[in-house]
Amino acid sequence: MIGIDWGTSSFRAFRLGDDGAVRERRAASRGIMSVADGKFADVVHEFAGDWLKDGETQILLSGMIGSRQGWTESKALPCPASIDDLAQALTPVPFDGAQVFIVPGLFTHDADGVPEFIRGEETQIAGLLPVIGDSGLVCLPGTHSKWVQIESGRIATFTTYMTGEAFAALSKHTILGRLMKGDDVDEAAYLRGVERSADAGGLLHHLFGARTLVLAGEMSETATWSYLSGLLIGHEIRSASTTYPDEVVHLIGEPHLCELYAHTLHIYDCEAVVREEEAAVLGLAHIGGLVQWN
Amino acid sequence: MIGIDWGTSSFRAFRLGDDGAVRERRAASRGIMSVADGKFADVVHEFAGDWLKDGETQILLSGMIGSRQGWTESKALPCPASIDDLAQALTPVPFDGAQVFIVPGLFTHDADGVPEFIRGEETQIAGLLPVIGDSGLVCLPGTHSKWVQIESGRIATFTTYMTGEAFAALSKHTILGRLMKGDDVDEAAYLRGVERSADAGGLLHHLFGARTLVLAGEMSETATWSYLSGLLIGHEIRSASTTYPDEVVHLIGEPHLCELYAHTLHIYDCEAVVREEEAAVLGLAHIGGLVQWN
Repeated sequence: MIGIDWGTSSFRAFRLGDDGAVRERRAASRGIMSVADGKFADVVHEFAGDWLKDGETQILLSGMIGSRQGWTESKALPCPASIDDLAQALTPVPFDGAQVFIVPGLFTHDADGVPEFIRGEETQIAGLLPVIGDSGLVCLPGTHSKWVQIESGRIATFTTYMTGEAFAALSKHTILGRLMKGDDVDEAAYLRGVERSADAGGLLHHLFGARTLVLAGEMSETATWSYLSGLLIGHEIRSASTTYPDEVVHLIGEPHLCELYAHTLHIYDCEAVVREEEAAVLGLAHIGGLVQWN
Repeated sequence: MIGIDWGTSSFRAFRLGDDGAVRERRAASRGIMSVADGKFADVVHEFAGDWLKDGETQILLSGMIGSRQGWTESKALPCPASIDDLAQALTPVPFDGAQVFIVPGLFTHDADGVPEFIRGEETQIAGLLPVIGDSGLVCLPGTHSKWVQIESGRIATFTTYMTGEAFAALSKHTILGRLMKGDDVDEAAYLRGVERSADAGGLLHHLFGARTLVLAGEMSETATWSYLSGLLIGHEIRSASTTYPDEVVHLIGEPHLCELYAHTLHIYDCEAVVREEEAAVLGLAHIGGLVQWN
Protein backbone atom coordinates (compact mmCIF):
# COMPACT_ATOMS: atom_id res chain seq x y z
CA MET A 1 0.00 0.00 0.00
CA ILE A 2 0.99 3.60 -0.55
CA GLY A 3 0.10 6.07 2.21
CA ILE A 4 0.20 9.81 1.51
CA ASP A 5 -0.02 12.49 4.19
CA TRP A 6 -0.95 15.47 2.02
CA GLY A 7 -1.37 18.79 3.74
CA THR A 8 -1.71 22.43 2.81
CA SER A 9 2.01 22.94 2.38
CA SER A 10 3.58 19.47 2.45
CA PHE A 11 3.40 16.13 0.66
CA ARG A 12 4.80 12.97 2.27
CA ALA A 13 4.44 9.58 0.54
CA PHE A 14 5.23 6.22 2.10
CA ARG A 15 5.48 2.76 0.57
CA LEU A 16 4.27 0.37 3.21
CA GLY A 17 4.86 -3.38 3.59
CA ASP A 18 2.07 -5.82 4.37
CA ASP A 19 3.07 -5.52 8.03
CA GLY A 20 2.51 -1.73 7.88
CA ALA A 21 6.24 -0.98 8.10
CA VAL A 22 7.65 1.86 5.97
CA ARG A 23 9.73 0.45 3.12
CA GLU A 24 10.39 3.74 1.30
CA ARG A 25 9.48 7.38 1.83
CA ARG A 26 9.42 10.58 -0.23
CA ALA A 27 8.72 14.15 0.80
CA ALA A 28 8.20 17.26 -1.31
CA SER A 29 6.98 20.83 -0.98
CA ARG A 30 3.93 19.87 -3.01
CA GLY A 31 1.20 20.73 -0.54
CA ILE A 32 -2.26 21.17 -2.05
CA MET A 33 -1.78 24.95 -2.33
CA SER A 34 1.11 24.35 -4.75
CA VAL A 35 -0.90 22.16 -7.13
CA ALA A 36 -2.52 24.12 -9.98
CA ASP A 37 -5.72 23.19 -11.82
CA GLY A 38 -6.45 20.16 -9.64
CA LYS A 39 -3.57 18.15 -11.16
CA PHE A 40 -3.15 16.01 -8.05
CA ALA A 41 -2.86 12.79 -10.05
CA ASP A 42 0.24 14.18 -11.77
CA VAL A 43 1.91 14.73 -8.39
CA VAL A 44 1.15 11.14 -7.38
CA HIS A 45 2.65 9.87 -10.65
CA GLU A 46 5.69 12.12 -10.21
CA PHE A 47 6.55 10.93 -6.70
CA ALA A 48 5.08 7.43 -6.57
CA GLY A 49 4.92 6.43 -10.24
CA ASP A 50 7.73 3.89 -9.89
CA TRP A 51 5.97 2.24 -6.92
CA LEU A 52 2.82 1.91 -9.04
CA LYS A 53 4.80 0.38 -11.90
CA ASP A 54 6.32 -1.99 -9.35
CA GLY A 55 2.85 -3.35 -8.54
CA GLU A 56 1.30 -1.14 -5.87
CA THR A 57 -2.47 -0.75 -6.45
CA GLN A 58 -3.70 0.76 -3.18
CA ILE A 59 -3.32 4.41 -2.19
CA LEU A 60 -4.66 5.92 1.02
CA LEU A 61 -4.60 9.72 1.47
CA SER A 62 -5.09 11.86 4.54
CA GLY A 63 -4.99 15.57 5.32
CA MET A 64 -6.15 18.69 3.52
CA ILE A 65 -6.16 16.77 0.22
CA GLY A 66 -9.72 15.87 1.33
CA SER A 67 -10.77 19.49 1.82
CA ARG A 68 -12.78 21.66 -0.56
CA GLN A 69 -9.47 22.96 -1.96
CA GLY A 70 -8.10 19.43 -2.37
CA TRP A 71 -8.54 16.60 -4.85
CA THR A 72 -12.02 15.44 -3.83
CA GLU A 73 -13.89 16.71 -0.77
CA SER A 74 -14.05 13.78 1.62
CA LYS A 75 -16.72 13.21 4.25
CA ALA A 76 -16.55 14.65 7.73
CA LEU A 77 -17.84 12.21 10.36
CA PRO A 78 -19.45 13.27 13.63
CA CYS A 79 -17.71 12.51 16.92
CA PRO A 80 -17.42 10.18 18.65
CA ALA A 81 -15.74 8.16 15.88
CA SER A 82 -13.58 5.05 15.99
CA ILE A 83 -10.80 4.03 13.63
CA ASP A 84 -13.24 1.50 12.16
CA ASP A 85 -15.68 4.35 11.51
CA LEU A 86 -12.92 6.18 9.61
CA ALA A 87 -12.02 3.07 7.57
CA GLN A 88 -15.66 2.53 6.62
CA ALA A 89 -16.24 6.10 5.44
CA LEU A 90 -13.43 6.55 2.92
CA THR A 91 -14.05 8.67 -0.13
CA PRO A 92 -12.94 7.11 -3.43
CA VAL A 93 -11.02 9.16 -5.99
CA PRO A 94 -11.00 8.11 -9.67
CA PHE A 95 -7.44 7.23 -10.70
CA ASP A 96 -6.05 5.04 -13.49
CA GLY A 97 -4.16 2.00 -12.31
CA ALA A 98 -4.81 2.08 -8.58
CA GLN A 99 -7.57 2.28 -6.01
CA VAL A 100 -7.38 5.66 -4.26
CA PHE A 101 -9.23 6.57 -1.04
CA ILE A 102 -9.23 9.62 1.21
CA VAL A 103 -9.66 9.30 4.98
CA PRO A 104 -12.63 11.36 6.25
CA GLY A 105 -12.22 14.32 8.59
CA LEU A 106 -14.20 14.69 11.80
CA PHE A 107 -16.48 17.34 13.24
CA THR A 108 -17.80 18.11 16.68
CA HIS A 109 -19.09 21.12 18.62
CA ASP A 110 -17.58 22.89 21.60
CA ALA A 111 -19.46 23.32 24.88
CA ASP A 112 -21.15 26.43 23.47
CA GLY A 113 -22.26 24.81 20.22
CA VAL A 114 -19.65 26.26 17.87
CA PRO A 115 -18.48 23.74 15.25
CA GLU A 116 -14.99 22.24 15.18
CA PHE A 117 -13.26 20.37 12.35
CA ILE A 118 -10.16 18.26 11.95
CA ARG A 119 -8.75 16.85 8.74
CA GLY A 120 -5.51 14.88 8.96
CA GLU A 121 -5.21 14.85 12.74
CA GLU A 122 -7.73 11.96 12.94
CA THR A 123 -5.19 9.85 11.03
CA GLN A 124 -2.35 10.88 13.36
CA ILE A 125 -4.53 9.92 16.32
CA ALA A 126 -5.28 6.57 14.65
CA GLY A 127 -1.53 5.99 14.54
CA LEU A 128 -1.14 6.77 18.20
CA LEU A 129 -4.12 4.87 19.61
CA PRO A 130 -2.25 1.58 20.13
CA VAL A 131 0.09 3.31 22.61
CA ILE A 132 -2.53 5.55 24.24
CA GLY A 133 -5.11 2.89 24.79
CA ASP A 134 -8.80 3.45 25.36
CA SER A 135 -8.72 6.93 26.83
CA GLY A 136 -6.43 9.92 26.92
CA LEU A 137 -5.82 13.45 25.78
CA VAL A 138 -3.73 14.24 22.70
CA CYS A 139 -2.32 17.68 21.87
CA LEU A 140 -1.08 18.48 18.35
CA PRO A 141 0.56 21.91 18.76
CA GLY A 142 1.10 24.25 15.82
CA THR A 143 -0.57 26.80 13.56
CA HIS A 144 -3.99 25.61 14.68
CA SER A 145 -3.29 23.59 17.83
CA LYS A 146 -5.68 20.71 18.42
CA TRP A 147 -6.54 19.07 21.73
CA VAL A 148 -8.25 15.74 21.15
CA GLN A 149 -10.06 13.68 23.77
CA ILE A 150 -10.02 9.88 23.39
CA GLU A 151 -12.74 7.92 25.20
CA SER A 152 -13.63 4.23 24.86
CA GLY A 153 -11.07 3.94 22.08
CA ARG A 154 -12.85 6.57 20.00
CA ILE A 155 -12.18 10.22 19.21
CA ALA A 156 -14.76 11.79 21.53
CA THR A 157 -14.27 15.52 20.97
CA PHE A 158 -11.60 18.14 20.29
CA THR A 159 -10.81 21.85 20.61
CA THR A 160 -8.77 24.14 18.35
CA TYR A 161 -6.63 27.13 19.37
CA MET A 162 -5.29 29.49 16.69
CA THR A 163 -2.06 29.87 18.66
CA GLY A 164 0.63 29.48 16.00
CA GLU A 165 -1.13 31.61 13.42
CA ALA A 166 -1.95 34.35 15.94
CA PHE A 167 1.70 34.36 17.02
CA ALA A 168 2.85 34.78 13.42
CA ALA A 169 0.41 37.63 12.72
CA LEU A 170 1.09 39.47 15.99
CA SER A 171 4.86 39.06 15.86
CA LYS A 172 5.16 40.17 12.24
CA HIS A 173 2.40 42.75 11.85
CA THR A 174 2.09 44.75 15.08
CA ILE A 175 4.15 47.16 17.14
CA LEU A 176 5.38 44.11 19.07
CA GLY A 177 7.13 42.88 15.96
CA ARG A 178 8.88 46.23 15.53
CA LEU A 179 10.27 45.82 19.05
CA MET A 180 11.53 42.32 18.38
CA LYS A 181 15.16 41.83 17.64
CA GLY A 182 15.76 38.32 16.44
CA ASP A 183 13.98 35.11 17.31
CA ASP A 184 16.54 33.62 19.68
CA VAL A 185 14.88 31.49 22.31
CA ASP A 186 15.10 33.14 25.73
CA GLU A 187 14.01 30.53 28.28
CA ALA A 188 13.45 32.98 31.13
CA ALA A 189 11.39 35.34 28.94
CA TYR A 190 9.33 32.40 27.64
CA LEU A 191 8.51 31.33 31.20
CA ARG A 192 7.72 34.92 32.14
CA GLY A 193 5.21 35.00 29.27
CA VAL A 194 3.70 31.70 30.39
CA GLU A 195 3.32 33.00 33.95
CA ARG A 196 1.81 36.23 32.66
CA SER A 197 -0.95 34.27 30.93
CA ALA A 198 -2.35 33.39 34.37
CA ASP A 199 -2.73 37.09 35.35
CA ALA A 200 -5.93 39.09 35.25
CA GLY A 201 -6.87 41.23 32.25
CA GLY A 202 -7.02 38.80 29.35
CA LEU A 203 -4.87 38.27 26.28
CA LEU A 204 -5.51 41.67 24.60
CA HIS A 205 -4.22 43.38 27.73
CA HIS A 206 -1.31 40.98 28.18
CA LEU A 207 -0.13 41.58 24.60
CA PHE A 208 0.48 45.24 25.33
CA GLY A 209 2.64 44.30 28.33
CA ALA A 210 5.23 42.87 25.94
CA ARG A 211 5.75 46.46 24.82
CA THR A 212 5.51 48.28 28.17
CA LEU A 213 7.99 45.94 29.86
CA VAL A 214 10.53 46.94 27.21
CA LEU A 215 9.64 50.65 27.45
CA ALA A 216 10.07 50.49 31.22
CA GLY A 217 13.47 48.81 30.86
CA GLU A 218 12.17 45.68 32.59
CA MET A 219 12.69 43.39 29.59
CA SER A 220 15.16 43.46 26.70
CA GLU A 221 13.97 43.77 23.11
CA THR A 222 15.63 40.45 22.29
CA ALA A 223 13.34 38.78 24.87
CA THR A 224 10.01 39.87 23.35
CA TRP A 225 9.84 37.04 20.79
CA SER A 226 10.07 34.37 23.50
CA TYR A 227 7.84 36.33 25.88
CA LEU A 228 5.06 36.56 23.28
CA SER A 229 5.47 32.86 22.48
CA GLY A 230 5.15 31.96 26.17
CA LEU A 231 2.19 34.28 26.58
CA LEU A 232 0.19 32.68 23.73
CA ILE A 233 1.12 29.08 24.52
CA GLY A 234 0.36 29.79 28.19
CA HIS A 235 -3.11 31.06 27.26
CA GLU A 236 -3.74 27.98 25.13
CA ILE A 237 -2.59 25.49 27.76
CA ARG A 238 -4.35 27.28 30.59
CA SER A 239 -7.62 27.14 28.70
CA ALA A 240 -7.16 23.55 27.49
CA SER A 241 -6.29 22.40 31.01
CA THR A 242 -9.62 23.84 32.16
CA THR A 243 -11.55 22.16 29.34
CA TYR A 244 -9.74 18.82 29.81
CA PRO A 245 -8.67 18.63 33.46
CA ASP A 246 -6.68 15.88 35.17
CA GLU A 247 -5.39 14.22 32.03
CA VAL A 248 -2.01 13.03 30.88
CA VAL A 249 -1.26 14.92 27.66
CA HIS A 250 0.19 12.96 24.73
CA LEU A 251 1.98 15.31 22.32
CA ILE A 252 2.32 14.67 18.58
CA GLY A 253 4.10 16.93 16.11
CA GLU A 254 7.30 18.80 15.46
CA PRO A 255 9.69 17.55 18.19
CA HIS A 256 10.97 20.94 19.34
CA LEU A 257 7.44 22.35 19.70
CA CYS A 258 6.28 19.20 21.52
CA GLU A 259 9.18 19.48 23.98
CA LEU A 260 8.27 23.12 24.60
CA TYR A 261 4.63 22.21 25.28
CA ALA A 262 5.64 19.32 27.55
CA HIS A 263 7.91 21.66 29.51
CA THR A 264 5.09 24.21 29.80
CA LEU A 265 2.52 21.60 30.84
CA HIS A 266 4.82 20.54 33.65
CA ILE A 267 4.67 24.13 34.94
CA TYR A 268 0.91 23.66 35.20
CA ASP A 269 1.51 20.38 37.05
CA CYS A 270 0.15 18.40 34.11
CA GLU A 271 1.71 15.14 33.05
CA ALA A 272 2.90 15.29 29.43
CA VAL A 273 4.54 12.72 27.16
CA VAL A 274 6.05 13.50 23.75
CA ARG A 275 4.89 10.76 21.36
CA GLU A 276 5.67 9.58 17.85
CA GLU A 277 6.39 12.39 15.43
CA GLU A 278 5.42 10.16 12.52
CA ALA A 279 1.93 9.36 13.73
CA ALA A 280 0.44 10.09 10.28
CA VAL A 281 2.09 7.15 8.52
CA LEU A 282 1.28 4.85 11.44
CA GLY A 283 -2.35 5.94 11.14
CA LEU A 284 -2.42 5.46 7.37
CA ALA A 285 -1.07 1.92 7.86
CA HIS A 286 -3.57 1.22 10.65
CA ILE A 287 -6.60 2.49 8.68
CA GLY A 288 -5.34 0.91 5.46
CA GLY A 289 -5.21 -2.45 7.24
CA LEU A 290 -8.96 -2.20 7.96
CA VAL A 291 -9.98 -1.33 4.40
CA GLN A 292 -11.56 -3.91 2.06
CA TRP A 293 -9.38 -3.26 -1.01
CA ASN A 294 -10.52 -4.80 -4.29
CA MET B 1 -1.64 80.12 22.84
CA ILE B 2 -1.08 77.43 20.23
CA GLY B 3 -2.03 73.89 21.18
CA ILE B 4 -0.78 70.96 19.12
CA ASP B 5 -2.06 67.41 19.45
CA TRP B 6 0.79 65.56 17.73
CA GLY B 7 0.48 61.82 17.46
CA THR B 8 2.18 58.98 15.62
CA SER B 9 0.27 59.54 12.42
CA SER B 10 -1.55 62.87 12.81
CA PHE B 11 -0.82 66.54 13.53
CA ARG B 12 -3.57 68.88 14.69
CA ALA B 13 -2.79 72.49 15.58
CA PHE B 14 -5.19 74.92 17.26
CA ARG B 15 -4.94 78.66 17.83
CA LEU B 16 -6.67 79.31 21.13
CA GLY B 17 -8.12 82.53 22.52
CA ASP B 18 -7.46 83.70 26.07
CA ASP B 19 -10.73 82.05 27.03
CA GLY B 20 -9.47 78.71 25.70
CA ALA B 21 -11.82 78.78 22.70
CA VAL B 22 -10.54 77.52 19.35
CA ARG B 23 -10.02 80.47 16.98
CA GLU B 24 -8.39 78.55 14.13
CA ARG B 25 -7.39 74.96 13.46
CA ARG B 26 -5.15 73.06 11.04
CA ALA B 27 -4.69 69.36 10.53
CA ALA B 28 -2.15 67.46 8.46
CA SER B 29 -0.84 63.94 7.96
CA ARG B 30 2.39 64.99 9.61
CA GLY B 31 2.47 62.55 12.53
CA ILE B 32 5.87 62.08 14.13
CA MET B 33 6.59 59.02 11.97
CA SER B 34 6.42 61.24 8.87
CA VAL B 35 9.00 63.75 10.13
CA ALA B 36 12.56 62.94 9.02
CA ASP B 37 15.77 63.88 10.86
CA GLY B 38 13.96 65.38 13.85
CA LYS B 39 12.83 68.42 11.85
CA PHE B 40 9.77 69.01 14.03
CA ALA B 41 10.39 72.78 14.23
CA ASP B 42 10.01 73.00 10.44
CA VAL B 43 6.56 71.40 10.67
CA VAL B 44 5.51 73.93 13.33
CA HIS B 45 6.72 76.78 11.12
CA GLU B 46 4.95 75.30 8.10
CA PHE B 47 1.54 74.97 9.76
CA ALA B 48 1.62 77.65 12.47
CA GLY B 49 4.23 80.10 11.17
CA ASP B 50 1.64 82.77 10.38
CA TRP B 51 0.19 82.50 13.90
CA LEU B 52 3.70 83.03 15.33
CA LYS B 53 4.24 86.04 13.07
CA ASP B 54 0.89 87.32 14.28
CA GLY B 55 2.16 87.41 17.86
CA GLU B 56 1.66 83.97 19.41
CA THR B 57 4.56 83.08 21.72
CA GLN B 58 3.24 80.05 23.64
CA ILE B 59 3.04 76.51 22.23
CA LEU B 60 1.82 73.50 24.20
CA LEU B 61 2.27 70.01 22.70
CA SER B 62 0.75 66.68 23.69
CA GLY B 63 0.93 63.15 22.35
CA MET B 64 3.67 60.95 20.93
CA ILE B 65 5.71 64.08 20.13
CA GLY B 66 6.93 63.60 23.71
CA SER B 67 8.06 60.00 23.13
CA ARG B 68 11.55 58.73 22.47
CA GLN B 69 10.76 58.92 18.73
CA GLY B 70 9.43 62.49 19.06
CA TRP B 71 10.93 65.94 19.39
CA THR B 72 12.14 65.73 23.00
CA GLU B 73 11.33 62.89 25.36
CA SER B 74 9.02 64.35 27.99
CA LYS B 75 8.64 63.11 31.56
CA ALA B 76 6.25 60.34 32.55
CA LEU B 77 4.59 61.03 35.90
CA PRO B 78 3.41 58.30 38.25
CA CYS B 79 -0.30 57.88 38.96
CA PRO B 80 -2.28 59.22 40.67
CA ALA B 81 -1.73 62.56 38.92
CA SER B 82 -3.87 65.69 38.76
CA ILE B 83 -4.08 68.23 35.95
CA ASP B 84 -1.98 70.53 38.15
CA ASP B 85 0.65 67.82 38.36
CA LEU B 86 0.72 67.67 34.56
CA ALA B 87 0.99 71.47 34.22
CA GLN B 88 3.88 71.58 36.68
CA ALA B 89 5.92 68.87 34.96
CA LEU B 90 6.08 70.20 31.40
CA THR B 91 9.21 69.55 29.36
CA PRO B 92 10.62 72.62 27.56
CA VAL B 93 11.75 72.37 23.94
CA PRO B 94 14.26 74.90 22.55
CA PHE B 95 12.57 76.88 19.76
CA ASP B 96 13.30 80.33 18.29
CA GLY B 97 10.57 82.88 18.81
CA ALA B 98 8.21 81.03 21.15
CA GLN B 99 8.11 79.11 24.40
CA VAL B 100 7.41 75.45 23.66
CA PHE B 101 6.39 72.84 26.25
CA ILE B 102 5.37 69.20 26.04
CA VAL B 103 2.76 67.72 28.41
CA PRO B 104 4.14 64.72 30.35
CA GLY B 105 2.80 61.21 29.91
CA LEU B 106 1.75 59.02 32.82
CA PHE B 107 2.70 55.60 34.05
CA THR B 108 1.15 53.11 36.43
CA HIS B 109 1.20 49.35 37.02
CA ASP B 110 -1.57 46.83 36.61
CA ALA B 111 -2.73 44.57 39.45
CA ASP B 112 0.07 42.14 38.61
CA GLY B 113 2.83 44.73 38.52
CA VAL B 114 3.23 45.09 34.77
CA PRO B 115 3.88 48.71 33.72
CA GLU B 116 1.39 50.80 31.76
CA PHE B 117 1.99 54.07 29.89
CA ILE B 118 -0.15 56.76 28.32
CA ARG B 119 1.03 59.70 26.30
CA GLY B 120 -1.60 62.02 24.88
CA GLU B 121 -4.61 60.43 26.56
CA GLU B 122 -3.80 62.32 29.82
CA THR B 123 -4.45 65.56 27.90
CA GLN B 124 -7.75 64.25 26.51
CA ILE B 125 -8.77 63.30 30.06
CA ALA B 126 -7.79 66.78 31.24
CA GLY B 127 -10.22 68.17 28.68
CA LEU B 128 -13.01 65.93 29.86
CA LEU B 129 -12.59 66.32 33.65
CA PRO B 130 -14.88 69.37 33.97
CA VAL B 131 -17.82 67.29 32.70
CA ILE B 132 -16.87 64.03 34.45
CA GLY B 133 -16.25 65.52 37.86
CA ASP B 134 -14.18 63.98 40.62
CA SER B 135 -14.56 60.34 39.75
CA GLY B 136 -15.44 58.20 36.78
CA LEU B 137 -14.22 55.75 34.19
CA VAL B 138 -13.07 56.88 30.73
CA CYS B 139 -12.60 54.59 27.74
CA LEU B 140 -10.61 55.73 24.70
CA PRO B 141 -11.19 52.94 22.16
CA GLY B 142 -8.84 52.31 19.24
CA THR B 143 -5.54 50.75 18.21
CA HIS B 144 -4.46 50.53 21.84
CA SER B 145 -7.69 51.02 23.79
CA LYS B 146 -7.24 52.75 27.15
CA TRP B 147 -9.52 52.52 30.19
CA VAL B 148 -8.72 55.30 32.65
CA GLN B 149 -9.97 55.52 36.22
CA ILE B 150 -10.56 59.00 37.68
CA GLU B 151 -10.61 59.30 41.47
CA SER B 152 -10.59 62.47 43.60
CA GLY B 153 -10.22 64.52 40.44
CA ARG B 154 -6.97 62.76 39.55
CA ILE B 155 -6.02 60.09 37.04
CA ALA B 156 -5.75 57.12 39.42
CA THR B 157 -4.83 54.23 37.12
CA PHE B 158 -5.44 52.84 33.63
CA THR B 159 -5.37 49.66 31.54
CA THR B 160 -4.47 49.12 27.89
CA TYR B 161 -5.93 46.55 25.47
CA MET B 162 -4.27 45.98 22.09
CA THR B 163 -7.69 45.48 20.50
CA GLY B 164 -7.52 47.60 17.35
CA GLU B 165 -4.02 46.52 16.41
CA ALA B 166 -4.77 42.83 17.07
CA PHE B 167 -7.88 43.15 14.90
CA ALA B 168 -5.85 44.64 12.04
CA ALA B 169 -3.15 41.94 12.24
CA LEU B 170 -5.60 39.04 12.56
CA SER B 171 -7.99 40.29 9.88
CA LYS B 172 -5.25 40.98 7.34
CA HIS B 173 -2.64 38.33 8.05
CA THR B 174 -4.39 35.09 9.01
CA ILE B 175 -6.69 32.53 7.43
CA LEU B 176 -9.59 34.59 8.86
CA GLY B 177 -8.65 37.42 6.54
CA ARG B 178 -8.71 35.11 3.54
CA LEU B 179 -12.29 34.20 4.45
CA MET B 180 -13.37 37.81 4.75
CA LYS B 181 -15.24 39.36 1.89
CA GLY B 182 -15.48 43.07 2.42
CA ASP B 183 -15.71 45.08 5.61
CA ASP B 184 -19.40 45.89 5.56
CA VAL B 185 -20.79 46.18 9.06
CA ASP B 186 -23.10 43.28 9.86
CA GLU B 187 -24.88 44.18 13.10
CA ALA B 188 -26.09 40.64 13.86
CA ALA B 189 -22.65 39.13 13.24
CA TYR B 190 -21.03 41.79 15.43
CA LEU B 191 -23.39 40.96 18.30
CA ARG B 192 -22.80 37.26 17.75
CA GLY B 193 -19.06 37.90 18.15
CA VAL B 194 -19.65 39.94 21.31
CA GLU B 195 -21.76 37.14 22.79
CA ARG B 196 -19.15 34.58 21.82
CA SER B 197 -16.54 36.44 23.88
CA ALA B 198 -18.39 35.36 27.04
CA ASP B 199 -18.07 31.65 26.17
CA ALA B 200 -15.51 29.24 27.59
CA GLY B 201 -12.24 28.51 25.83
CA GLY B 202 -10.50 31.89 25.56
CA LEU B 203 -9.71 34.19 22.66
CA LEU B 204 -7.32 31.85 20.79
CA HIS B 205 -10.09 29.25 20.64
CA HIS B 206 -12.80 31.78 19.78
CA LEU B 207 -10.76 33.10 16.83
CA PHE B 208 -10.89 29.73 15.13
CA GLY B 209 -14.67 29.68 15.44
CA ALA B 210 -14.86 32.56 12.97
CA ARG B 211 -13.58 30.05 10.42
CA THR B 212 -15.49 26.95 11.47
CA LEU B 213 -18.84 28.77 11.52
CA VAL B 214 -18.27 29.63 7.85
CA LEU B 215 -17.05 26.11 6.98
CA ALA B 216 -20.17 24.66 8.63
CA GLY B 217 -22.42 27.02 6.68
CA GLU B 218 -23.57 28.68 9.90
CA MET B 219 -22.19 32.13 9.02
CA SER B 220 -21.58 33.90 5.72
CA GLU B 221 -18.09 34.96 4.66
CA THR B 222 -19.27 38.58 4.51
CA ALA B 223 -20.11 38.37 8.22
CA THR B 224 -16.63 37.37 9.44
CA TRP B 225 -15.26 40.93 9.55
CA SER B 226 -18.00 42.09 11.93
CA TYR B 227 -17.92 38.84 13.91
CA LEU B 228 -14.16 39.19 14.57
CA SER B 229 -14.65 42.83 15.50
CA GLY B 230 -17.39 41.93 18.00
CA LEU B 231 -15.30 39.07 19.37
CA LEU B 232 -12.28 41.28 20.13
CA ILE B 233 -14.25 44.26 21.44
CA GLY B 234 -16.32 41.84 23.52
CA HIS B 235 -13.17 40.39 25.06
CA GLU B 236 -11.85 43.87 25.84
CA ILE B 237 -15.08 45.12 27.42
CA ARG B 238 -15.68 41.93 29.34
CA SER B 239 -12.22 42.15 30.90
CA ALA B 240 -12.41 45.91 31.54
CA SER B 241 -15.83 45.53 33.18
CA THR B 242 -14.25 43.06 35.59
CA THR B 243 -11.30 45.34 36.35
CA TYR B 244 -13.53 48.43 36.72
CA PRO B 245 -16.96 47.21 37.83
CA ASP B 246 -20.09 49.26 38.44
CA GLU B 247 -18.94 52.39 36.65
CA VAL B 248 -20.50 54.68 34.09
CA VAL B 249 -18.17 54.64 31.08
CA HIS B 250 -17.35 57.97 29.42
CA LEU B 251 -16.18 57.39 25.84
CA ILE B 252 -13.76 59.67 24.00
CA GLY B 253 -12.56 59.20 20.43
CA GLU B 254 -13.69 58.55 16.90
CA PRO B 255 -17.51 58.96 17.06
CA HIS B 256 -18.43 55.79 15.17
CA LEU B 257 -16.16 53.64 17.34
CA CYS B 258 -17.46 55.31 20.50
CA GLU B 259 -21.05 54.59 19.47
CA LEU B 260 -20.13 50.96 18.84
CA TYR B 261 -18.53 50.66 22.28
CA ALA B 262 -21.50 52.39 23.95
CA HIS B 263 -23.88 49.98 22.22
CA THR B 264 -21.74 47.01 23.32
CA LEU B 265 -21.45 48.26 26.91
CA HIS B 266 -25.24 48.43 27.08
CA ILE B 267 -25.30 44.72 26.24
CA TYR B 268 -23.22 44.17 29.38
CA ASP B 269 -25.69 46.35 31.32
CA CYS B 270 -23.07 49.05 31.72
CA GLU B 271 -24.00 52.70 31.49
CA ALA B 272 -22.05 54.45 28.74
CA VAL B 273 -21.95 58.04 27.51
CA VAL B 274 -20.20 59.22 24.35
CA ARG B 275 -18.29 62.40 25.22
CA GLU B 276 -16.46 65.17 23.40
CA GLU B 277 -14.50 63.95 20.39
CA GLU B 278 -12.20 66.95 20.64
CA ALA B 279 -11.06 66.35 24.18
CA ALA B 280 -7.42 66.90 23.24
CA VAL B 281 -7.78 70.58 22.42
CA LEU B 282 -9.93 71.14 25.51
CA GLY B 283 -7.17 69.51 27.56
CA LEU B 284 -4.44 71.58 25.94
CA ALA B 285 -6.44 74.75 26.74
CA HIS B 286 -7.04 73.57 30.31
CA ILE B 287 -3.41 72.67 31.02
CA GLY B 288 -2.15 75.75 29.14
CA GLY B 289 -4.27 77.91 31.44
CA LEU B 290 -2.38 76.56 34.45
CA VAL B 291 1.10 77.16 33.03
CA GLN B 292 3.27 80.09 34.16
CA TRP B 293 4.30 81.32 30.72
CA ASN B 294 7.17 83.86 30.57
